[in-house]
Amino acid sequence: MTTEELVQQIRKKQSFLCIGLDTDLIKVPKHLQGEEDPIFAFNKAIIDSTHSHCVAYKPNTAFYEAYGVKGWLALEKTIDYLNSDYPEIFTIADAKRGDIGNTSKRYAQAFFEDLGFDSVTIAPYMGKDSVEPFLEFTNKHTILLALTSNSGAYDFQTKMVNGMELYKQVLEISKTYSNSQNLMYVVGATKASYLQEIRKIVPDSFLLVPGVGAQGGSLEEVCKYGMTANIGLLVNSSRGIIYASDKSDFAEIAAKKAKELQQQMSLELKRFG
Amino acid sequence: MTTEELVQQIRKKQSFLCIGLDTDLIKVPKHLQGEEDPIFAFNKAIIDSTHSHCVAYKPNTAFYEAYGVKGWLALEKTIDYLNSDYPEIFTIADAKRGDIGNTSKRYAQAFFEDLGFDSVTIAPYMGKDSVEPFLEFTNKHTILLALTSNSGAYDFQTKMVNGMELYKQVLEISKTYSNSQNLMYVVGATKASYLQEIRKIVPDSFLLVPGVGAQGGSLEEVCKYGMTANIGLLVNSSRGIIYASDKSDFAEIAAKKAKELQQQMSLELKRFG
Repeated sequence: MTTEELVQQIRKKQSFLCIGLDTDLIKVPKHLQGEEDPIFAFNKAIIDSTHSHCVAYKPNTAFYEAYGVKGWLALEKTIDYLNSDYPEIFTIADAKRGDIGNTSKRYAQAFFEDLGFDSVTIAPYMGKDSVEPFLEFTNKHTILLALTSNSGAYDFQTKMVNGMELYKQVLEISKTYSNSQNLMYVVGATKASYLQEIRKIVPDSFLLVPGVGAQGGSLEEVCKYGMTANIGLLVNSSRGIIYASDKSDFAEIAAKKAKELQQQMSLELKRFG
Repeated sequence: MTTEELVQQIRKKQSFLCIGLDTDLIKVPKHLQGEEDPIFAFNKAIIDSTHSHCVAYKPNTAFYEAYGVKGWLALEKTIDYLNSDYPEIFTIADAKRGDIGNTSKRYAQAFFEDLGFDSVTIAPYMGKDSVEPFLEFTNKHTILLALTSNSGAYDFQTKMVNGMELYKQVLEISKTYSNSQNLMYVVGATKASYLQEIRKIVPDSFLLVPGVGAQGGSLEEVCKYGMTANIGLLVNSSRGIIYASDKSDFAEIAAKKAKELQQQMSLELKRFG
């Protein structure tokens, strides 16, 4: 999917919501546990009920790898289902991969070609040749970790390097990579005021923002400091939507929660978009 | 496996060789391509022929993920085979994972419990709560990326942070993590002289050293600067061994190459161990 198509979807749906499919078998409601593939059954129900309120889904691969081959099958079925039934949806493999050049190429092929995701999250620590193999793919997007929303972010990301925080160095240096137009960035919403400074470095790039709601970030602040003329924001919510109910009404309640967020986003789009 | 058991194996075999199972289906010799699972058939033949010359195997997960469910099955079969037939071998999942706390826990369970690896490689960018869930596992080892052997290592890892290079900060700060005794570190051999300084920060930790041979590092230098009273080194070779021949004699030639390295290591152990 091109960035332009993503922006069109955001304007059409009045939503820049990404729903995190961090599907935990233990949290799948009882009535689905007897299904042949309870994880996929859960994802399918969530997708069917919420797709009109969001523009993206983001399965985190850890939750699928935790179940080995069975989990990997559920991930394949989920992305296949999204690509066949909801081709207007932007898909993100939250994999946080990164390796030396020829190995990163393998990951890129796995996520972009074989699985068919539109984008994948990447860790920046190994630098240029670990990121560029992902950037080679046309109309695919590489979402580089810049400033994450967890407490460990302060260990290294906010440390000063040549007069600027490491996460800003990541932003600056990544702009020099080949095909850097295919970059997006992860920026935690717990530091919404940082977005103003981030926008000085990457004024137009899309930012994937976790940590709104449960982790304490404010949607209004994120939009005030982060929104661009082309929106430039995907705001993620996972547990607050998919686990809002653990009963047979989980999909219905998830839709309700997603719609509430979409309505808030619609207001922000009118204000800042 | 405990560190003591690993050291015992090194002394017994006079080898601190780790063989990287970066198995590429395209490079599997023709006569194995008709097998039900050519990747596992290749790995099994390599393991059977080389196990007496090495103490560790390190499959890089990218090569398995590249084949989706089939690849994941081959990875499972490989680690199961190692654990059942060669329990004296130290196993490393070269996965370079790392995520927020509760998600890292999922990865830790996947690699340590479900797959049964002795160790896994981890990226440090997300800090403390992304690493500690791996450190909780007794007699399991978390191999943190410090200084990698690729060219992109200079993008961030060698940049100065508070008066020392970022990779040294990673070493220093990781020592303060809970259960840091379960840490090992990836240190590329292309910078063997750096090992002297690294040993000032982590005098006793095991270092996993890629990049000897093909990538230009010298085994002698690595041992001179990196070896400790308890050895403290695992030196990896992948392509130089497993792809030394692409014909039906590949396992035999791999054994020859592994034995050559083991013999060099035996000399270094006499000198510096």
